[in-house]
Amino acid sequence: MRIARFEVGDSIRYGVIEGDTVTEIEGDVFAKFEQTSATHRLAAVRLLAPVVPSQMFGPGLNFADHLHHAAGITGQTEMSPTPEPWHKGINSLSNPGDAIVIPFDSTTGVEYEGECLAVIAIATRRVSPEEAWDRILGYTCGNDVSERTWQSNDGSFWRGKGTDTFSPIGPWIDTVFDPKAGGDMVVRVNGTEVQRASTADMYFDFGEVISFISQQVTLLPGDIVWSGTTGDPQVLNPGDIVEVEVEGIGVLSNPVEAEPRQG
Amino acid sequence: MRIARFEVGDSIRYGVIEGDTVTEIEGDVFAKFEQTSATHRLAAVRLLAPVVPSQMFGPGLNFADHLHHAAGITGQTEMSPTPEPWHKGINSLSNPGDAIVIPFDSTTGVEYEGECLAVIAIATRRVSPEEAWDRILGYTCGNDVSERTWQSNDGSFWRGKGTDTFSPIGPWIDTVFDPKAGGDMVVRVNGTEVQRASTADMYFDFGEVISFISQQVTLLPGDIVWSGTTGDPQVLNPGDIVEVEVEGIGVLSNPVEAEPRQG
Repeated sequence: MRIARFEVGDSIRYGVIEGDTVTEIEGDVFAKFEQTSATHRLAAVRLLAPVVPSQMFGPGLNFADHLHHAAGITGQTEMSPTPEPWHKGINSLSNPGDAIVIPFDSTTGVEYEGECLAVIAIATRRVSPEEAWDRILGYTCGNDVSERTWQSNDGSFWRGKGTDTFSPIGPWIDTVFDPKAGGDMVVRVNGTEVQRASTADMYFDFGEVISFISQQVTLLPGDIVWSGTTGDPQVLNPGDIVEVEVEGIGVLSNPVEAEPRQG
Repeated sequence: MRIARFEVGDSIRYGVIEGDTVTEIEGDVFAKFEQTSATHRLAAVRLLAPVVPSQMFGPGLNFADHLHHAAGITGQTEMSPTPEPWHKGINSLSNPGDAIVIPFDSTTGVEYEGECLAVIAIATRRVSPEEAWDRILGYTCGNDVSERTWQSNDGSFWRGKGTDTFSPIGPWIDTVFDPKAGGDMVVRVNGTEVQRASTADMYFDFGEVISFISQQVTLLPGDIVWSGTTGDPQVLNPGDIVEVEVEGIGVLSNPVEAEPRQG
């Protein structure tokens, strides 16, 4: 099943997608809901970030082939023994189609990171990796936009990965996708493929990351855990269109803009 | 004016405190509101965390006399040239009177940090330090409960300062308090004073910290910025009662419990 959050007229609704139609639901999207008789053509609604999480967590380095790239940013030269979670700022959340804005005071620009995201269904505390899988509603795509100078020099990722517009997610939640079986996470910039890796190659899988976080933190319905990224992401330029596709889920597309200099 | 958030019967309300009475309000607590005719004795309601922020940010080291203590935890030996913000997990938010729970898997226990908290009134982006002061609704007290082993060894403060129950805040928002004029932040454990410092001695004042964060992050109404702490905080024990008082605001009191070991 594919669950979308969308704007139609002045209101925001959840719905179930089938083909080119979205059907509004009634009830709790994280628990029990029913489809209504209200349907819309998918092309006639504006898709939004499919959830509004209370928190988002990324893992530290989570693909062995990203180690080389990370070493130049954080100095890390080997995989960590734990998932090393960090907060991705909620202010940075944005929608499919929203612009990724390069801050005028960034000296080195921003890079894409195409990722798969797990959406939590149920309040989760102190679960095992095996139990954690049952706490996931489904999966969506996300772009972990990163400003490398801030990521490297600051004491936390508050702006390096948390600046406004740095977390486009969507286009919907797929409840059938199986990251253990593996789906390729693909990034295209202006139509050219620039990144590809399988969710099956996550160093810590979603069960392990969620279990680890849940030992100290209660994850709530809608909260998001990012997969981590792979390879050697490159800088985005104003005017670019960047797409993150998780094969089997869908495509998240965002344009890139430069913030006008102030003052 | 003192603004409280409280539970009465099954509902949660905002109100204005005068003497030993709280009067319910109508409207937007962050903008325009009016007092109603519904009043309660303060002793008859349960005070809650006075806001539910979308995000909370702490500064890095923000009192020169905490440098010695911090050096043993993070290795930091001099003040940073910027406020070095970090996310304090929203899951850790708790109410006046709620227990601070020492996780069973903490090897070194938890320490108190008595702090003053600024509550944002208006969506705030790219303001100057001078402008930032006008974006503050008021101030409350908070305990930045910290597990030092996790704070020291993890790559981020996600659990060292973000474990469930690690952010009691309250008892209310005081809109008249002036941290520039200075109010003493005092901590008492079982009635004995263990920490005292003035908000006037913050290395980066609230205007500077909020301005700095707002360059990349839109702060929203209700968001919280912590002051940082001072001196040499000590470990809390199960059965302790820890009070954080910001003189001129009020007293936040919380008991300390040990989490039962699992399995």
